[in-house]
Amino acid sequence: MNKADGDDCGGEAVQQQQPEEDQSPAEKLQSKGPGWTRVHCPCCASERIEPLVLVKLGQKVRPETKRWLIRLIGTPQTDGGAGLLAHPGEDASGDIIVVSAPRCTLLRATEELGLCKTYSNDNMEAFSYVDRDNFKDSDNMEVFLTLAERQYIVKYELDGVRAQRDLRIPGLPDNYTLQRRDNVWQKLGSAGVIVDTLPLHNPDKLKALTEAWYTGNQLAQPLDSVNGYFGSSVAFYFSFLDFYTWSLLPPAILGLSITYFSGEVQKEMDESVSGSGPTGVEEDSGLAVSGHMVQALFIMIWSTVFMEMWKRRSSSLSYRWGTLHLAERFAEPRPAFHGELGVNPVTGRMEPLFPEWQRDLRMALVSIPVVGLFLGLVVLGMLGFYWGEAQAKQLHAEWDTMLSQTLLYMPSVLHITYTNMLATVYRKVATSLTEYENHREESAYENHLTTKVLVFTFFNCFAVLFHIAFFKQDVPLLRKRLASLLIVSQLVNQVTEVVVPFLVDRFISAPHRQESEDHPEEDKFRNQSSLPTFPGLFGEYIELLVQFGYLSLFSCVYPLTAVLLLINNLTEIRSDAYKICRLFRKPFTPPVANMGVWRFAFEVLSFISVVSNCWLLLLSPRLQELVQEGWMSNTNVLLLAVLMEHVLIGVKVVLSLLIPDEPDWIRKKRQHIEYTSLQALRQQSLSSEES
Amino acid sequence: MNKADGDDCGGEAVQQQQPEEDQSPAEKLQSKGPGWTRVHCPCCASERIEPLVLVKLGQKVRPETKRWLIRLIGTPQTDGGAGLLAHPGEDASGDIIVVSAPRCTLLRATEELGLCKTYSNDNMEAFSYVDRDNFKDSDNMEVFLTLAERQYIVKYELDGVRAQRDLRIPGLPDNYTLQRRDNVWQKLGSAGVIVDTLPLHNPDKLKALTEAWYTGNQLAQPLDSVNGYFGSSVAFYFSFLDFYTWSLLPPAILGLSITYFSGEVQKEMDESVSGSGPTGVEEDSGLAVSGHMVQALFIMIWSTVFMEMWKRRSSSLSYRWGTLHLAERFAEPRPAFHGELGVNPVTGRMEPLFPEWQRDLRMALVSIPVVGLFLGLVVLGMLGFYWGEAQAKQLHAEWDTMLSQTLLYMPSVLHITYTNMLATVYRKVATSLTEYENHREESAYENHLTTKVLVFTFFNCFAVLFHIAFFKQDVPLLRKRLASLLIVSQLVNQVTEVVVPFLVDRFISAPHRQESEDHPEEDKFRNQSSLPTFPGLFGEYIELLVQFGYLSLFSCVYPLTAVLLLINNLTEIRSDAYKICRLFRKPFTPPVANMGVWRFAFEVLSFISVVSNCWLLLLSPRLQELVQEGWMSNTNVLLLAVLMEHVLIGVKVVLSLLIPDEPDWIRKKRQHIEYTSLQALRQQSLSSEES
Repeated sequence: MNKADGDDCGGEAVQQQQPEEDQSPAEKLQSKGPGWTRVHCPCCASERIEPLVLVKLGQKVRPETKRWLIRLIGTPQTDGGAGLLAHPGEDASGDIIVVSAPRCTLLRATEELGLCKTYSNDNMEAFSYVDRDNFKDSDNMEVFLTLAERQYIVKYELDGVRAQRDLRIPGLPDNYTLQRRDNVWQKLGSAGVIVDTLPLHNPDKLKALTEAWYTGNQLAQPLDSVNGYFGSSVAFYFSFLDFYTWSLLPPAILGLSITYFSGEVQKEMDESVSGSGPTGVEEDSGLAVSGHMVQALFIMIWSTVFMEMWKRRSSSLSYRWGTLHLAERFAEPRPAFHGELGVNPVTGRMEPLFPEWQRDLRMALVSIPVVGLFLGLVVLGMLGFYWGEAQAKQLHAEWDTMLSQTLLYMPSVLHITYTNMLATVYRKVATSLTEYENHREESAYENHLTTKVLVFTFFNCFAVLFHIAFFKQDVPLLRKRLASLLIVSQLVNQVTEVVVPFLVDRFISAPHRQESEDHPEEDKFRNQSSLPTFPGLFGEYIELLVQFGYLSLFSCVYPLTAVLLLINNLTEIRSDAYKICRLFRKPFTPPVANMGVWRFAFEVLSFISVVSNCWLLLLSPRLQELVQEGWMSNTNVLLLAVLMEHVLIGVKVVLSLLIPDEPDWIRKKRQHIEYTSLQALRQQSLSSEES
Repeated sequence: MNKADGDDCGGEAVQQQQPEEDQSPAEKLQSKGPGWTRVHCPCCASERIEPLVLVKLGQKVRPETKRWLIRLIGTPQTDGGAGLLAHPGEDASGDIIVVSAPRCTLLRATEELGLCKTYSNDNMEAFSYVDRDNFKDSDNMEVFLTLAERQYIVKYELDGVRAQRDLRIPGLPDNYTLQRRDNVWQKLGSAGVIVDTLPLHNPDKLKALTEAWYTGNQLAQPLDSVNGYFGSSVAFYFSFLDFYTWSLLPPAILGLSITYFSGEVQKEMDESVSGSGPTGVEEDSGLAVSGHMVQALFIMIWSTVFMEMWKRRSSSLSYRWGTLHLAERFAEPRPAFHGELGVNPVTGRMEPLFPEWQRDLRMALVSIPVVGLFLGLVVLGMLGFYWGEAQAKQLHAEWDTMLSQTLLYMPSVLHITYTNMLATVYRKVATSLTEYENHREESAYENHLTTKVLVFTFFNCFAVLFHIAFFKQDVPLLRKRLASLLIVSQLVNQVTEVVVPFLVDRFISAPHRQESEDHPEEDKFRNQSSLPTFPGLFGEYIELLVQFGYLSLFSCVYPLTAVLLLINNLTEIRSDAYKICRLFRKPFTPPVANMGVWRFAFEVLSFISVVSNCWLLLLSPRLQELVQEGWMSNTNVLLLAVLMEHVLIGVKVVLSLLIPDEPDWIRKKRQHIEYTSLQALRQQSLSSEES
């Protein structure tokens, strides 16, 4: 029955729209861009239509399907379309559709997303469509919304299109019939009609951005331009990277002076290369407090102050970028969210509902055990490695041949392979687990996925160091390992992040680009889709987190850590900027108000650092010496360390409570918005009665 | 100049009002209550006017001052009055004014305070004056608002009256001239015109409440009625007491079974009386894990679960009582708040402003050092006590006379006197410090004052126990001290809270009451003002907190703690209820959304309990035995305890993150309110354009 219905009026749902428009005044509102679908209201007519998003169709898509799709994109939202503007490209039967957005759709979506914009009184206020004329620049979309926002809105609208009733898609076999409330974009994706949806670069803006960002010797990043071009989630990463890098200065200076004054430069070098024990301990025994202790104490307090200051900076940035009052939980759920149709108790809209307790149950009974299992596999791998190493050494000692010599490397190779395989498998498992948890909001989905991968990666990176520090209790080995990790990982990073991309760009991408110089604009669009997809910021963030871990957890055994990190990050800023500008497709980035779960991860690390530092101080050569000399009993030293740990944790808790998470002026602005919204609520029914 | 102005038109400001009214239609809206001031709008006219608040005037107040005051109370708020209803009492020149409130004033204040009321769709929604007709019972104030709310609103309005210009008060000397924006009620108080402002009891309701509350053998308290009659802050205290008492059941049962199964009943008794050491340790050495450990572990987890469940209960109660969305920070500042006049950046109203950083500075440079000084004095007192005790013992040993025998008690007596004096002084200092900090909101003031007194009292109560546990490391002494504290403090409490009040009521208050049986209602009002002022809930809360401290910090050395506390609290509920109903004046209680700073104090204790319990376990006879037998080295035992502590703190943190602070349905309701308010904000300007 349903199918028959669909067959009867499938494509016509949209076509019916067309004749009506022909008679309507909208007819005369032809935009200047030739070939674009018509806009539906006078205010949206504009001189020039900016291509925002490229939709790449499958090779075998038939022209009627493409026509239907273009009409669907152009149909107003009230009639079940996306309310956007579509252009079929030069060749009407070609495999691309270029999409742009009219003013009204952009403004309505701005309100729906809860973005803040500059009001006529120069405050940032949550945008309101009915009040649009009081917002600055609301007549010029290219100034009012950033490029990233406009592109995200296009994606948001495309993703949000749902079939209003059962519908057959013209030119597709019957098994792709749309059911009522099916997500059209997802369905077309799985049917192979749509291969890709990607935001387009704006060459002029990109050029200006790259010049201001990384081509010169500038120290400051153009963060506002980054936010405008790449969106707030990318801008938050670079702001954090910036803030973190400059915050490394004090520990770097301290580390340098400790190393210098205790004459340890030579020693550290020796040790990190040759791996000999702490031979020079006696040299600086004249000092009452060793550099280790100063470094440990400083880092413990520094990490808390750093995180608190970042929270304040983050909220100012969020205010500036208009993302302080995002209304994601009031918006439509993410496309992949499923559940029984019902009335959302918060917004009163019909949408799929999924009970909270069921999600909790799935997390408790499925996700947590599976993640635990993988963590167990990491530990198992580490134990296997140690066992293998011992076996290989024994064999080598027994046989002492070339074969046994190479056998010595086997455990390391096997362990690295195992770890990498495990990480790949885990990544897939984590994605499907998070999918299974069925989160309503995109950000919740992202946060849960990130948390899962984060815990695993962190465990993977630090298991060995923790093992050395807490079980083997071998400070020289820890120092050696830390130094080599820092140096090797930096070298690897620089190579993979700067050298390889540069070579790829020079010898693979560049010829490609030159070729297309004299081709029409359309081909430039097509070329962009040949770039690899941007892999997301997870890798960048985890790199910073691991760095921060080295620094806060273990740097007291190797005070030069901060110096090395500082140098690394100064190049990292440039290489990351180069990467995102040149080597990948432009990503869609949703507006976000902060770093999400990453802030929490950094804070947790900062607290664990107290435990780790106190423990390492306990193992420090100076204390061990004192114990051996009989100055203090082992128990008393331990008690002292525990006491110090508790006091420090207390200090950190108090510090983080005392430093407000947002600057005073932001708090006032926020409260002002709350106040006006409360006032509006009270006036609401009066006006509805009056009207 | 100013004074001359005031002299010219002082009393007339209000008098001018009168003639206008005489001609207005309000003239015909005479309320039924004879002698009451007129209401100013048709909707406020009612059959019966309920006396809500009694204002007691000084003996020497002249009739013209009283008349002026009555007019001021009756003048609408727009003309600088309180917008209430006043009655001069039987004798127009008598020393009381009875105050009530008309409907419009009550409703407007309900909106201003941000109280939630039942909407026509049965949800609780923030009350909106313009939408009043859609709220249930909004035509009947005695159902719509609780008695406590009505009385608080009267006080709120009286406190909020500010002189609109310079003004001389009739019948008062010139030095009491009001300046513009002076707080009238405060000024009248300092001029001796107003001696007291107290809410009146409603005898019928009080009778019904006491019957449902404590006269029978009922197990449940009538919390909703308590909230209605005494207001939410009192109701929150009793709800917490109730919740806490029933939550004591599991640890009480565990404590009883541990005591029973390890056959320690006899032993504990012996020890708590005779103070002998742990003689029976060998008896239960067959058990692998001692009762102490089970008790400690259980209490550590229990305390977190208890606090998390209370948070959930608290937010449900807050929803039910309509205090989930209080708008205190948007309301007028508290009367004593002072600062330079300016525009509040949040509400846009003219009011005194005081910079945040200046308050922070005052706290950091004055409050914290002073509080620290007093804490130091406590420690000094304790050290003095120990020193004195040692001296007295030595003297007694040398002399061995009756005199030296009594000298033995001197240190205790001196220490108790010292502690009490210190507490009294500290209380005063804390009040003026908090006053000096100049908080804008009443709740901020309360919270800061409570925190200061709380820290001191807690320190005062637990310094000795901590000293015994951590420095003397004497478990038997700790057990003895804990048992005697529990038993003695309970006896003292029962006597001071039940017996003394009962006797006072029987032999002092009751004759007083009988005398007034045949007097007019006015005298009954007057009698209420002869009762002592309600001392506030601080004492009650601190009692619970100290109890909770005994239980969570030290109960592993004395498992019967929970049982004793349970018995104590069951009578505590009744005696507290009796006290507030019968022995004191009815207090004004502002609507509150939760327990405020107390919840935080209980949570902090719950975390400290992990440290304390792990330490006590370390000192436990069983472990000490194992160490002596050489099973484990001292260091390893210590490491084990530290490890356990860290794991337990981790578990507690995770638990408190996992258990949501509010039930799911409350979260949805809250989000719904946020959503509607966001929608209203967006629609706002449309309606203002239309109108």
